[in-house]
Amino acid sequence: MDIEKVNSMDFGEFVDVFGNVIERCPLIAAAVWSQRPFSDLEDLEKHFYAFIDALPPSGQEGILRCHPDLAGRELQQGTLTAESQREQSGAGLTSLGADERLRLEELNAQYRARFGFPFVLAARLSHRAAVPRELARRLHCSPAQELRIALGEVKKIARLRLADLLGVDPSRL
Amino acid sequence: MDIEKVNSMDFGEFVDVFGNVIERCPLIAAAVWSQRPFSDLEDLEKHFYAFIDALPPSGQEGILRCHPDLAGRELQQGTLTAESQREQSGAGLTSLGADERLRLEELNAQYRARFGFPFVLAARLSHRAAVPRELARRLHCSPAQELRIALGEVKKIARLRLADLLGVDPSRL
Repeated sequence: MDIEKVNSMDFGEFVDVFGNVIERCPLIAAAVWSQRPFSDLEDLEKHFYAFIDALPPSGQEGILRCHPDLAGRELQQGTLTAESQREQSGAGLTSLGADERLRLEELNAQYRARFGFPFVLAARLSHRAAVPRELARRLHCSPAQELRIALGEVKKIARLRLADLLGVDPSRL
Repeated sequence: MDIEKVNSMDFGEFVDVFGNVIERCPLIAAAVWSQRPFSDLEDLEKHFYAFIDALPPSGQEGILRCHPDLAGRELQQGTLTAESQREQSGAGLTSLGADERLRLEELNAQYRARFGFPFVLAARLSHRAAVPRELARRLHCSPAQELRIALGEVKKIARLRLADLLGVDPSRL
């Protein structure tokens, strides 16, 4: 899909296509449509990021709270979004042993209790062995620092999803 | 459900319960959770409204774009949210004649083309004969005026959905 195609979309099509660039936040894609036309992928991406950055902290926390746990209940129940399913699967999180899954479950719970939002990580840039290590490391961050780090992960996820949608090789980003 | 119950919810439960108070915008409920504890329904409602009011116009338009058309494609296809389905059905929009439906379809298309978001109306406070009249009337508003009116409808819908969830008789609001 080229950028002319993107710029020709009405808001309904645009939200259908880009509604999950930010996990379960079609509101953000719907808001970004107001900023068209876009000059290229980077420009489109910039408007997603700008929307996130302009939100008050409660709104930024809200974005994080729309994300599923990694290797969590929704993965077990098959209720992940298609994008999350693919990303968690690609990182090997669908084939954890019982011990690994339990360990991650405990860490996820500690993280949620400490920060009030789930642990978010661009799973496509990680793998099953690295996830619990990274989670344990980030548990020691201050809340303000961790909010910043987690939003950085949201942006990495968005960049990869946008690249997929526009048919750009992510390694060229 | 009383307000103590609401205040005891973790963010996962809260988003499950209140995620569609603003149609297809779980991000907003997820952000409102940061403002707990709530003293009562009015207080909870106030935080939903405050989030909407603090968004830039593109974000407010984004909220509107997450709403379905009244008596539109999603009603035909059965893909409305449970809340929208109930509200549109209660207003008699599920039993329009072919002529009425076509008329509404044309008006919806004119409205979307003029304002860049769908026509939003608290259907529970209206009925099938009044909907096209109201739509035709609002087509004459200025874009700024209409954004304000449409967000007022979003808030009326939110108030009624919150009252349902908390078991409050809406006529007492």
